Amino acid sequence: MVVPVAMVLKPLSVIQSSVGKNVIVEMKGKREYRGVLDGYDPHMNVVLKNAEERVDGVPKRKLNIAIVRGDNVIYISP
Amino acid sequence: MVVPVAMVLKPLSVIQSSVGKNVIVEMKGKREYRGVLDGYDPHMNVVLKNAEERVDGVPKRKLNIAIVRGDNVIYISP
Amino acid sequence: MVVPVAMVLKPLSVIQSSVGKNVIVEMKGKREYRGVLDGYDPHMNVVLKNAEERVDGVPKRKLNIAIVRGDNVIYISP
Amino acid sequence: MVVPVAMVLKPLSVIQSSVGKNVIVEMKGKREYRGVLDGYDPHMNVVLKNAEERVDGVPKRKLNIAIVRGDNVIYISP
Amino acid sequence: MVVPVAMVLKPLSVIQSSVGKNVIVEMKGKREYRGVLDGYDPHMNVVLKNAEERVDGVPKRKLNIAIVRGDNVIYISP
Amino acid sequence: MVVPVAMVLKPLSVIQSSVGKNVIVEMKGKREYRGVLDGYDPHMNVVLKNAEERVDGVPKRKLNIAIVRGDNVIYISP
Amino acid sequence: MVVPVAMVLKPLSVIQSSVGKNVIVEMKGKREYRGVLDGYDPHMNVVLKNAEERVDGVPKRKLNIAIVRGDNVIYISP
Repeated sequence: MVVPVAMVLKPLSVIQSSVGKNVIVEMKGKREYRGVLDGYDPHMNVVLKNAEERVDGVPKRKLNIAIVRGDNVIYISP
Repeated sequence: MVVPVAMVLKPLSVIQSSVGKNVIVEMKGKREYRGVLDGYDPHMNVVLKNAEERVDGVPKRKLNIAIVRGDNVIYISP
Repeated sequence: MVVPVAMVLKPLSVIQSSVGKNVIVEMKGKREYRGVLDGYDPHMNVVLKNAEERVDGVPKRKLNIAIVRGDNVIYISP
Repeated sequence: MVVPVAMVLKPLSVIQSSVGKNVIVEMKGKREYRGVLDGYDPHMNVVLKNAEERVDGVPKRKLNIAIVRGDNVIYISP
Repeated sequence: MVVPVAMVLKPLSVIQSSVGKNVIVEMKGKREYRGVLDGYDPHMNVVLKNAEERVDGVPKRKLNIAIVRGDNVIYISP
Repeated sequence: MVVPVAMVLKPLSVIQSSVGKNVIVEMKGKREYRGVLDGYDPHMNVVLKNAEERVDGVPKRKLNIAIVRGDNVIYISP
Repeated sequence: MVVPVAMVLKPLSVIQSSVGKNVIVEMKGKREYRGVLDGYDPHMNVVLKNAEERVDGVPKRKLNIAIVRGDNVIYISP
């Protein structure tokens, strides 16, 4: 079965459709940010609201707003 | 034997033809994601559906949808 | 619920609206800079005024002005 | 002896002429992939068919098709 | 309070206004260079005059002139 | 003494003039390749013929042809 | 005191004016190359003549000619 090109999802479109929802942003260095996705740009830099930072699984800090740099992202999961 | 240029596969075409299929995405840092390929872009960022994350071979997390950043990909295997 | 594209925040706009405020700049290598955001550019290089450098949570140095390179930024939080 | 510019081989031309042949793709992180080269692109991303993955010299996995990202390539040898 | 865009400092402008002054150039790998800023370019490569190199806080070498590559810069502080 | 601009050697010209000669390609990760330079491109990707790979000074493998990726090159010496 | 823009030195101009002179090229990985600067390009790739390689301060190898890749340069000092 071949999927029509029109049905292939663009990663940025999936990020776009996640704005306003809770997301997990898994990062290099065993860091993870969870919060409401408020914005993004084509470099996968994201804006998170009411975010929690976890390092190695342990909650470390609450952040009202965080601009997380895309460079260190492993995955974003809505 | 020389293979005609027209018969050389482009990596992105092979990814395109894997949309809708199960794939393994092997990553740096001993991470691996397995799921249904739902989309991709030219940076090898991929969208996986019903994905399982394994770290060092051990299942770690289930992800309904994950946008996995291409930067850290070692290989994608359909 | 789908968020209208016009309401999606650009990371750089959030940085722009933080100029003049205190920010935390979390960096790779367990470094952190806190100070007043005085400027930035599209590479996320930032200018901090009255900044304090912390390494591994320990205050290390006071900097009247610091141009912090965006490459090593993990997140910026106003 | 000076070699005429016209006789200097372009790396991508050598990869092109290896399509359809067995190649070794040596990677960072002590990884190695051996298989039939099925395609490539200018970033040295390659498509391998009937590939074997070796980690630190030990066979680890068989892959019918693998799109191996060029970023981590050290050398390709036909 | 919103800061007018015209009052936002560009990182390169702050570097420009530091030419002729003593600066600290903090680098990755626990290196630090102190000297008179003699020049720079948009990649944050800088020219230092009468520079002292410190590694892990320990003075290591005196350099009459050094062209320090921007890639490894963490911050520059005038 | 100022050297006229016309006499400044371009790195790629020196590589060009080394085609057909034995070269040492020193790489990150304590790897070294020695062989006849058969080609190159502007990214410093090189084609080596009759190459010997050494890891940490110890001969490891003979390669009839190797396309060595420029990314990991430290220096090339004809 | 503000230095006129015309008097700000460009890093590449300082490298240009060092051609024909002895330079130290300090590199990542505790490597250092000393020799006569014979050429360069805008990526800070440099050509050294009669170069000595030192690793961790210990002389390791003499190189008649070496094309040293700019990527790994920390500083160049004439």
